[in-house]
Amino acid sequence: MIAIVSRNTVKEGKVEEFKKLTVELIEKSQKEEGCIEYNLYQDLKNPRTLTFIEKWESEEAIEKHKNSKHFTSIVPKIKELNESGELSLYDLAHK
Amino acid sequence: MIAIVSRNTVKEGKVEEFKKLTVELIEKSQKEEGCIEYNLYQDLKNPRTLTFIEKWESEEAIEKHKNSKHFTSIVPKIKELNESGELSLYDLAHK
Repeated sequence: MIAIVSRNTVKEGKVEEFKKLTVELIEKSQKEEGCIEYNLYQDLKNPRTLTFIEKWESEEAIEKHKNSKHFTSIVPKIKELNESGELSLYDLAHK
Repeated sequence: MIAIVSRNTVKEGKVEEFKKLTVELIEKSQKEEGCIEYNLYQDLKNPRTLTFIEKWESEEAIEKHKNSKHFTSIVPKIKELNESGELSLYDLAHK
């Protein structure tokens, strides 16, 4: 299992647009083979911080996800609304 | 539901000690009322980055957790092993 925490700081005034764009991305990603979890969270103190928390069964599943139509069509649009972004890949610390 | 992402950068040479200390904390926290998820993850690129991903049913459950014996006895020891830490509280972006 691989967990992904992808934190986005969205440009001023672009949060609603960012959220709208992610609806389809989330719905379709959740249905992908090897997707355990895929959700978007909004920081309670900093509403311009929007963070994906994802869990995937394998690296192969992540590769497929990155090549999916919904990823390649939506993620570039999301990135345009970002001031900055930071992505971390994780493994469970205790196995 | 409230999600917590608590990222710790552990001091050089202290990762194993940090991980050992978290075993009991994780086991007991997972059993708490209102705990949906409580796990520790290790960054694949930066093994000194250890991140808790937690999900709780309510603020009340988090308050109880912070006052639990396992929290008040173990978390201060963990913090001593930290170079730095960062905690974010999140709500689901789409409800």
